[in-house]
Amino acid sequence: MYAPSLDVAGVGNAIVDVLAQADDAFLAAHSIAKGGMMLIDEAQAKSIYDAMAPGVEISGGSAANSIACIASLGGKGAFIGKVSKDNLGDIFRHDLKALGVAFDTAPLDKGPGTARCLINVTPDAQRSMTTYLGSAGYVSPADIDEHTIERSAITFFEGYLFEQPVAREAFVKACRTAKRAGRKAALTLSDAGCVDRQHTALIAFSKAHVDVLLANEREAEALFGARKLDDIAAKARTLCPLTAVTMSEKGSVLIPRDGDIVRIAAVKPERLVDTTGAGDAYAAGLLFGLAKGMSLEKCGALGALSAAEVISHFGARPQTNLRKLAVEAGIL
Amino acid sequence: MYAPSLDVAGVGNAIVDVLAQADDAFLAAHSIAKGGMMLIDEAQAKSIYDAMAPGVEISGGSAANSIACIASLGGKGAFIGKVSKDNLGDIFRHDLKALGVAFDTAPLDKGPGTARCLINVTPDAQRSMTTYLGSAGYVSPADIDEHTIERSAITFFEGYLFEQPVAREAFVKACRTAKRAGRKAALTLSDAGCVDRQHTALIAFSKAHVDVLLANEREAEALFGARKLDDIAAKARTLCPLTAVTMSEKGSVLIPRDGDIVRIAAVKPERLVDTTGAGDAYAAGLLFGLAKGMSLEKCGALGALSAAEVISHFGARPQTNLRKLAVEAGIL
Repeated sequence: MYAPSLDVAGVGNAIVDVLAQADDAFLAAHSIAKGGMMLIDEAQAKSIYDAMAPGVEISGGSAANSIACIASLGGKGAFIGKVSKDNLGDIFRHDLKALGVAFDTAPLDKGPGTARCLINVTPDAQRSMTTYLGSAGYVSPADIDEHTIERSAITFFEGYLFEQPVAREAFVKACRTAKRAGRKAALTLSDAGCVDRQHTALIAFSKAHVDVLLANEREAEALFGARKLDDIAAKARTLCPLTAVTMSEKGSVLIPRDGDIVRIAAVKPERLVDTTGAGDAYAAGLLFGLAKGMSLEKCGALGALSAAEVISHFGARPQTNLRKLAVEAGIL
Repeated sequence: MYAPSLDVAGVGNAIVDVLAQADDAFLAAHSIAKGGMMLIDEAQAKSIYDAMAPGVEISGGSAANSIACIASLGGKGAFIGKVSKDNLGDIFRHDLKALGVAFDTAPLDKGPGTARCLINVTPDAQRSMTTYLGSAGYVSPADIDEHTIERSAITFFEGYLFEQPVAREAFVKACRTAKRAGRKAALTLSDAGCVDRQHTALIAFSKAHVDVLLANEREAEALFGARKLDDIAAKARTLCPLTAVTMSEKGSVLIPRDGDIVRIAAVKPERLVDTTGAGDAYAAGLLFGLAKGMSLEKCGALGALSAAEVISHFGARPQTNLRKLAVEAGIL
């Protein structure tokens, strides 16, 4: 076995975000659940977009945001995801490549356009997402480049894609490839609604394949059917070697199967502007640290620091070099 | 003659901006003149974009930015410009319509894609622009909707488009339509290089058609061949009924043909982040005020206030309601 030449490979939705300011009345008028993520079809996307305020387009996608943060931390990342041959696909590809991320998945030749996530940000900094998946949902086992997986310390999946049957097959292929190569697999649950709908399958997949499981409080409750930390920890330990639960401003906990719970304090952002990408950035810090063999305390601290940077401005990808911030904070 | 139902109609480049952070070495490596605007072809655009940092996409275009500011000031605006049938064209159209701006120019059916302006912003907040004109340069006399011009108090042209022969014909058609309807025409010079190249034609066009001429210091020097205010004013008065010259942090001057020069102080922004769009925003304040019949002092103050908002953040369009700011400042 050789040492991994990549830190983390992400498999996820290739999405361009459209961020705009909105108020609660707008969310109500369009039946958008505050703080959530809802899949919409092309017609719904057109109708919501037509009604939205002027927007800003920024590359997004949960796992892709994480990989962007890992690059900003000084890590080596790769991404597997499906864009279409259009302007948004070009933008998505450029923004990853410009960070030095390997992204070689062939674009979808015919069919729907590149995915877009319409993100309405309310004055309380909450983001409410409606996603038109477009080509992003077309990730298939053929897109899983085994060489990329084999040379990545960790392969990271976003739960959003778990609902697409062919993408799920791609996940399984990637997990098997990773295991054969002695590498690790990580999964973020992405959305409590998704966990509810896919509960049995997610439990089975996690038990069979996942080394590192990430969830926020609501997702953890949906998966484990428990609210108290001790209950969550007991169930999490039966499922995966390491589980991380994030709790916004209350920080996060890391639950190793064979060790004590590690509590991580949240890092207060300079100012709270837009919570889009907080979980993605936390995952990046944690996975970067794990890929580098750091202590759980440091892994969690990197996650908290990365999340704080990302919520201090509009958009889900870092605008300040995370490695520099981590060095200044004494973590790296 | 009836009262105008629109304040300002803009005729200009329909462009989506791609903003990214860069350093001086990047500008040097790609022969990009700091603070300027350079037209590039598709191959150059690809080469510069490939090398650029991750970007943010925001609708731009000089006159379109001005019209967006006029909407934010509470004015009624229209825009005439050419997008293509692609994602960037959809984004550009959406972002104007979402502000209540009338924008009904038919998209280009075949040919190049929607224009993009690659804007590299250096740590000193200077923006250096390279523009691939794409479909934007295809504005033709057929796109000049006479009804829109007839019902606009002022029709506003951006000098960038003056270099496209067919677009220039469109300008002339719009000016004649405006004059027949008893309306006014305004022109911003846009770029000193453009003024140098088109000097004779710009002098003739301004004298024949332009009621309000806008320029920054460098453009004014290029057009009038003078640096001293008295010399500029003497020449400007022979050309147009009103000339405005902006001088960044030194404020601006308004030169009426039949009156004393009015000096306008600059408004200091909360913080200086990105000067993209400063001139466009100034033009908006000035033209909005003129359309509403306000005093030159107030028109200039509205311009200065609008510019200060736009340079306090990334991107050329306002993020705060300009009307609210103007009311708070006691101008409206």
